[in-house]
Amino acid sequence: MDEERPDSGVWLAALASRYSVGPKHLAEPGPTPEELAQAASVSLRAPDHGGLRPFRFVHIAASQRAALGELFATGARERGLDGADVERARERAFNGPALLALIGCWQPGHPEVPLREQLLCAGAGLMNLLNALHLMGYGAKTLSGASVDDPAVSRAFCGESEQLLCWVVCGRPQRAAHPRYPAAPAAPLSDWSGPVLG
Amino acid sequence: MDEERPDSGVWLAALASRYSVGPKHLAEPGPTPEELAQAASVSLRAPDHGGLRPFRFVHIAASQRAALGELFATGARERGLDGADVERARERAFNGPALLALIGCWQPGHPEVPLREQLLCAGAGLMNLLNALHLMGYGAKTLSGASVDDPAVSRAFCGESEQLLCWVVCGRPQRAAHPRYPAAPAAPLSDWSGPVLG
Repeated sequence: MDEERPDSGVWLAALASRYSVGPKHLAEPGPTPEELAQAASVSLRAPDHGGLRPFRFVHIAASQRAALGELFATGARERGLDGADVERARERAFNGPALLALIGCWQPGHPEVPLREQLLCAGAGLMNLLNALHLMGYGAKTLSGASVDDPAVSRAFCGESEQLLCWVVCGRPQRAAHPRYPAAPAAPLSDWSGPVLG
Repeated sequence: MDEERPDSGVWLAALASRYSVGPKHLAEPGPTPEELAQAASVSLRAPDHGGLRPFRFVHIAASQRAALGELFATGARERGLDGADVERARERAFNGPALLALIGCWQPGHPEVPLREQLLCAGAGLMNLLNALHLMGYGAKTLSGASVDDPAVSRAFCGESEQLLCWVVCGRPQRAAHPRYPAAPAAPLSDWSGPVLG
């Protein structure tokens, strides 16, 4: 074992201290292009049955935020919203110093890897992107909502057999990350009690 | 920042060095119950929209391996296999010094959290379990196959609205982990080129 490697308690505490930090609490600067590329490369360490690489990330540059906001606003109007609600939808495109989309790249009907495993892989890749950003000192949060299912937004991000899964906002955290939900009473682990009889 | 905290390059290299290690290359001892509980608790740092906790892990103790093997063998016979193939199916229940099942605990029709987000959360939780085991010095691999969809196996692990997603084997790695698939030509990250026109 490398002597410079910290003991596992330090590692585990670092992973265990990752919580979502919402866009209101994220400040400039966001990650550099090199840091984003490094975080995306760590995402590839997800378990990927068949090596399908069933996900990718798309970065929305500052110069494209207004175009995305226009898509969000149009979608909101098409869902029957107006006035301040449309502007709120538009503003979500400006969330966070950095904004990424997670795209699922599905192979439906794959003989060995059902879609649920492809989704698990995408979730695992997302986790490692978030872990990498956290370990670099950034806060981040996964966001979804109506924009993820908006057909015009999907067309603007996805090719054939692709699906927009969520957004990831990222930046310098302006407050300590903390749990949003009450502490779990116990880890989600139990011992198998054996086969069901009868 | 805590002075004992290593720089982010060391963290990222640790996460980036996680690869699956198959059961043939895993030796005793497996993780202790305390280590498994700690790894499962790190899994809870997955992004979990709505705090649904849509997954849990089940540990198959050494004393239950034979019972699981009998389920695997019965399922193989029901799929039309016989002889050595049935025995190979049975032997899979003895894979790895430690064996876990990942169970999805779905809330179908949730008003805010579609099933795909619940699957992403389960995949993210799996990633962090694997990361935690890796950082403790264990090797692990996610396995699936016909047993995951076997009705009798599912009944033995799942309650209502639950789904057996995969197995995780774990133990002391007997060789250096290495990529199974060719190195990715680039990280799965691109810049958004803007809305589709016309």
